[in-house]
Amino acid sequence: MEPVVPVAVVGASGYTGAELLRLLLVHPHVRIAGVYAKRAAGEKLSSIFPQFAGRLDLAIRSFDAAEIAAAARVVFCALPHGESSPIVAQLYEQGLTVLDLSADLRLHDPAAYKEWYGHDAHPLCAQAVYGIPELARRSLRDVRLFACPGCYPTASLLALAPLVYADLVSREGLIVDAKSGVSGAGRAATQSVHFSEIGEGVRAYKVAGTHRHTPEIEQGLGARGIIFTPHLLPMTRGILATCYATPTDPARPASAYRDALASFYSGRAFVSVVDAPPDTAHVRGSNRAHVFATFDARARRVVAMCAIDNLTKGASGQAIQCMNLALGLPETAGLDGVGMFP
Amino acid sequence: MEPVVPVAVVGASGYTGAELLRLLLVHPHVRIAGVYAKRAAGEKLSSIFPQFAGRLDLAIRSFDAAEIAAAARVVFCALPHGESSPIVAQLYEQGLTVLDLSADLRLHDPAAYKEWYGHDAHPLCAQAVYGIPELARRSLRDVRLFACPGCYPTASLLALAPLVYADLVSREGLIVDAKSGVSGAGRAATQSVHFSEIGEGVRAYKVAGTHRHTPEIEQGLGARGIIFTPHLLPMTRGILATCYATPTDPARPASAYRDALASFYSGRAFVSVVDAPPDTAHVRGSNRAHVFATFDARARRVVAMCAIDNLTKGASGQAIQCMNLALGLPETAGLDGVGMFP
Amino acid sequence: MEPVVPVAVVGASGYTGAELLRLLLVHPHVRIAGVYAKRAAGEKLSSIFPQFAGRLDLAIRSFDAAEIAAAARVVFCALPHGESSPIVAQLYEQGLTVLDLSADLRLHDPAAYKEWYGHDAHPLCAQAVYGIPELARRSLRDVRLFACPGCYPTASLLALAPLVYADLVSREGLIVDAKSGVSGAGRAATQSVHFSEIGEGVRAYKVAGTHRHTPEIEQGLGARGIIFTPHLLPMTRGILATCYATPTDPARPASAYRDALASFYSGRAFVSVVDAPPDTAHVRGSNRAHVFATFDARARRVVAMCAIDNLTKGASGQAIQCMNLALGLPETAGLDGVGMFP
Amino acid sequence: MEPVVPVAVVGASGYTGAELLRLLLVHPHVRIAGVYAKRAAGEKLSSIFPQFAGRLDLAIRSFDAAEIAAAARVVFCALPHGESSPIVAQLYEQGLTVLDLSADLRLHDPAAYKEWYGHDAHPLCAQAVYGIPELARRSLRDVRLFACPGCYPTASLLALAPLVYADLVSREGLIVDAKSGVSGAGRAATQSVHFSEIGEGVRAYKVAGTHRHTPEIEQGLGARGIIFTPHLLPMTRGILATCYATPTDPARPASAYRDALASFYSGRAFVSVVDAPPDTAHVRGSNRAHVFATFDARARRVVAMCAIDNLTKGASGQAIQCMNLALGLPETAGLDGVGMFP
Repeated sequence: MEPVVPVAVVGASGYTGAELLRLLLVHPHVRIAGVYAKRAAGEKLSSIFPQFAGRLDLAIRSFDAAEIAAAARVVFCALPHGESSPIVAQLYEQGLTVLDLSADLRLHDPAAYKEWYGHDAHPLCAQAVYGIPELARRSLRDVRLFACPGCYPTASLLALAPLVYADLVSREGLIVDAKSGVSGAGRAATQSVHFSEIGEGVRAYKVAGTHRHTPEIEQGLGARGIIFTPHLLPMTRGILATCYATPTDPARPASAYRDALASFYSGRAFVSVVDAPPDTAHVRGSNRAHVFATFDARARRVVAMCAIDNLTKGASGQAIQCMNLALGLPETAGLDGVGMFP
Repeated sequence: MEPVVPVAVVGASGYTGAELLRLLLVHPHVRIAGVYAKRAAGEKLSSIFPQFAGRLDLAIRSFDAAEIAAAARVVFCALPHGESSPIVAQLYEQGLTVLDLSADLRLHDPAAYKEWYGHDAHPLCAQAVYGIPELARRSLRDVRLFACPGCYPTASLLALAPLVYADLVSREGLIVDAKSGVSGAGRAATQSVHFSEIGEGVRAYKVAGTHRHTPEIEQGLGARGIIFTPHLLPMTRGILATCYATPTDPARPASAYRDALASFYSGRAFVSVVDAPPDTAHVRGSNRAHVFATFDARARRVVAMCAIDNLTKGASGQAIQCMNLALGLPETAGLDGVGMFP
Repeated sequence: MEPVVPVAVVGASGYTGAELLRLLLVHPHVRIAGVYAKRAAGEKLSSIFPQFAGRLDLAIRSFDAAEIAAAARVVFCALPHGESSPIVAQLYEQGLTVLDLSADLRLHDPAAYKEWYGHDAHPLCAQAVYGIPELARRSLRDVRLFACPGCYPTASLLALAPLVYADLVSREGLIVDAKSGVSGAGRAATQSVHFSEIGEGVRAYKVAGTHRHTPEIEQGLGARGIIFTPHLLPMTRGILATCYATPTDPARPASAYRDALASFYSGRAFVSVVDAPPDTAHVRGSNRAHVFATFDARARRVVAMCAIDNLTKGASGQAIQCMNLALGLPETAGLDGVGMFP
Repeated sequence: MEPVVPVAVVGASGYTGAELLRLLLVHPHVRIAGVYAKRAAGEKLSSIFPQFAGRLDLAIRSFDAAEIAAAARVVFCALPHGESSPIVAQLYEQGLTVLDLSADLRLHDPAAYKEWYGHDAHPLCAQAVYGIPELARRSLRDVRLFACPGCYPTASLLALAPLVYADLVSREGLIVDAKSGVSGAGRAATQSVHFSEIGEGVRAYKVAGTHRHTPEIEQGLGARGIIFTPHLLPMTRGILATCYATPTDPARPASAYRDALASFYSGRAFVSVVDAPPDTAHVRGSNRAHVFATFDARARRVVAMCAIDNLTKGASGQAIQCMNLALGLPETAGLDGVGMFP
């Protein structure tokens, strides 16, 4: 029987923090040893997230690396970009296994980081392993530092990587038109996430090469000049990436693209190749991804899609998946549920 | 270690069927032995509920009592009212433990049944145990036949029963103003559940003593002449029951009502007494109930509330809770998660 | 042919301000002479409300009573409570017709005002006419100062007043269970209006005699000790008031209550008595109210309902209706559309 | 003063029928002479669309071409595809001005029609004028037969046509990724429009060159092999078309594309060029279109967008705009409102 691993969550006052706790609470091999947040330190967890009332009655604590090192073996950092890396560095030095959900350590190329973020990358970038297990080229066993991917890159890469890696589509001229739920913007109150501003409407934002997930997608595909267009939809969870690519051989049958996905994901527990365009509602709250690919014979283009829950497979669930693999636990431990539909 | 119990689901093509399967799939002491439905028999489960793609690859089968008896020990019937009782009777005769999610066996009083349903009650009504474990007056161990309550009665009774039973409020003049998500209407396509008809609007329906959940609430409280007003809201899951009651002693402090709830639900895993009006979003997808009570000193009335997920604590989750107790499993087995918020 | 009246809007950066402008823009007898707001002064209106792009290209100006008096004959004040009355006083002194959409001048009883707002009422309270034309007991012609009602009181009073005034129901024991869209909370960004907090959930707030619209409803009915329970729903617009009342004579037929509404609203352009429970979706964006009443014979209680759009009949549309009557214009001028459904 | 034109609506039981009536009801130069529908003939309009209760108390009548010809001068046909053209032919023969909102007469090329619809085009195709006034190459004055465009083509063409016509982008390799509200699917009850199936999810449908609006977009642009991917979103109204195009000269500045839109739509009342990606919420319920274009310098592609209300500018509003022009009325008569936001 696997041991029970004590874990801590830093940044518990945001949505990815809450999602980590929701999942860890029912993880059979894990015990929640502490929750930390700057905001709301001293308060009960249930005062900011009432879903935990009567079920996880912890007080939120101020960050303290030594205290965490004494109490936990694994720590998840769900902090804002920029704030995360110094905290991660402290925890990593303490010998903990650290899963960083921020963007701070995701780009391997320091020049790309500086171009997109305007300041130097943290030196730990070099050590951090990018955490999409299905695309990892090495074993994740015993990895101690993960840069957990953004939600958009997770969806985009799961749809496109198998086709790009197999050279079925060109690395040139890739387009990702992505549709996201509002929770991806975090819990902070801004006018742009007001129910009355979001409800019954759709719009794009940060278009034409200005969204910082662009270089993360390019890194994952070994491509440059991808068009990435994020859209905000009137729903809380979910990302659908609709991707357009140029086939390397337009004479190939449509089934070739579907088959490539099926073959690539064969034996992977969380990714299903589906035969109709995937719906984010079907993966809601789960760590599952539904992927799809077809060929538009009139336009001679490949259309590939991936639907995930941005907070689960796009963030907290995938981080737990990484932890499972790093610790040698079953990959699906605590993550074996299906989407909550309806 | 508890044994693994083979279970079957009859009526797997509807929402409560899907919810049963979602929960049973991660239940540690259960194995899904078969799924049955008239509609879609022969099809793969994932063709009607794509959330199961790659995770539960069963074909849906036509109902066959003998086959079920051979394969399963427990069976959940999620069939439409009227269609359910003959099926339930067959399964019960086979020696199975049966959890009926329809209304067919819920009313103990044959006269009340006939008044509300227009035909005679099924004789099994006399044997069926009404399945709200928190309100049960007997042990549920080894019960073989459950009439699982409606979603509205579950919410209404969890809010009011502790106050009525303790004689803190009168059985006269009770009002339940209930707000429900659309999934309560089932999966059948009707104009009244069209997204464009429901979105951005709210309305009551079956008002003034015409909704069939009324006698079920009255039965649970030992009351007559309750006003029950159901409303349809633009959301998929969730029921909030806002209840108005006359205190037996208007001089009592507001805390008395909250304390009565806390005392009644002390030691119950699924019901939390909360200090702010409960939100259905906080219990979404979980078997939890958030209850609340206060006193309006100006109006000299008690206001009590309960928020549940109509498909989980209001239907499928509660049925599994009953099964757990009937089989001597831990009450929370497979049900120990919190609401999916956001 | 009626003259074109120059009007100004003060507080144009909020939702009621935008709704005033949407309606005034197509009002046949009105010209928008200026828009004023503290926030966003100097900016183009379309920079904060893009719906006006290319259609109403005005700059927002800082408040200036003399400038407004020189340019306009009528002014709408859509300012926050507390900030409004000093501004209103200045404008009123300038001889303008003033429609105040805040709560500052709504209560006639200074003691009630002090009890609910914690400070003395503004002296202009005595002059202001409460602006629900259907319930007004005097001509509104030439009225120069309106206290425009809150959205909840408008819905509650339209449902209950005809029954109370005709003595069909008692003034004792009245209950208003109200369901509101989120826009009623205004445009300010707070966590409680975040899409991800509101979506797919319902909750009550300010329960048990703590919401400031309570005394306004009581004033309109000449009652005390009303229970008023507001709920927040996952929709942007709309209020449904579900009201419970005790009949003065329980032997009356159900039709008596419907007939009383029909008779009371006979000849009123904006209020329709409907035969099924009303839906807020059917009055969306219009100045219309759908009212309904029935009798629950089992419970011997009257159930009355009213559905309005909180921003239109519950605020901006009704203010324009008042202006029309004050100026001797046709009551429905600029307001004769129906709800935008779907 | 313009005359009052009697108009009839055939197909009044669907959403575009209701939208026509909502708009025509406040049109200053029009009188609704009759409403016709197969479904619901004999019923009151308000029994199927309660928003008209007390405001437009007409009975729905069975179709009768002679009766319509006697009572009306203009007729709108909002019938299902396939059912429409025989009815349109009858009405056109009667000398009426006919606006057909179906797809039956939209394609000029009989071969393309047969390829996409599987049967021969109606001969009237040759006479019908495609009704996007902003793109019309001839005066619409006195046109007697309009093929009103689909909602997707309207949005797609308003975004792309100015760029294609001015040869700023290539006709090759065009991609339209479109996001639609659910009302575009019509009022018929199907499982795919069930609130619980649509809520909180997004998916594509009819991908890879299978949606019948594809040839309509190609016809409008004089292009072949366009990729058109429609998506269904959890909202009732609105279409956002996100379009990707290859510039004919990649050295052009980003402003060139915006300027081309501004110049093309100069003097057009309903189309505004906006500087941030447009939001469908800002045009809701109006006949307005918000268009946007930029250049992605990294990817060397043009991104152009258009947001409309699918039922208004995408259907009923635009049909009325065509009627206004055909009759010599002001183009904006009855259509001069802005979007209902929030």
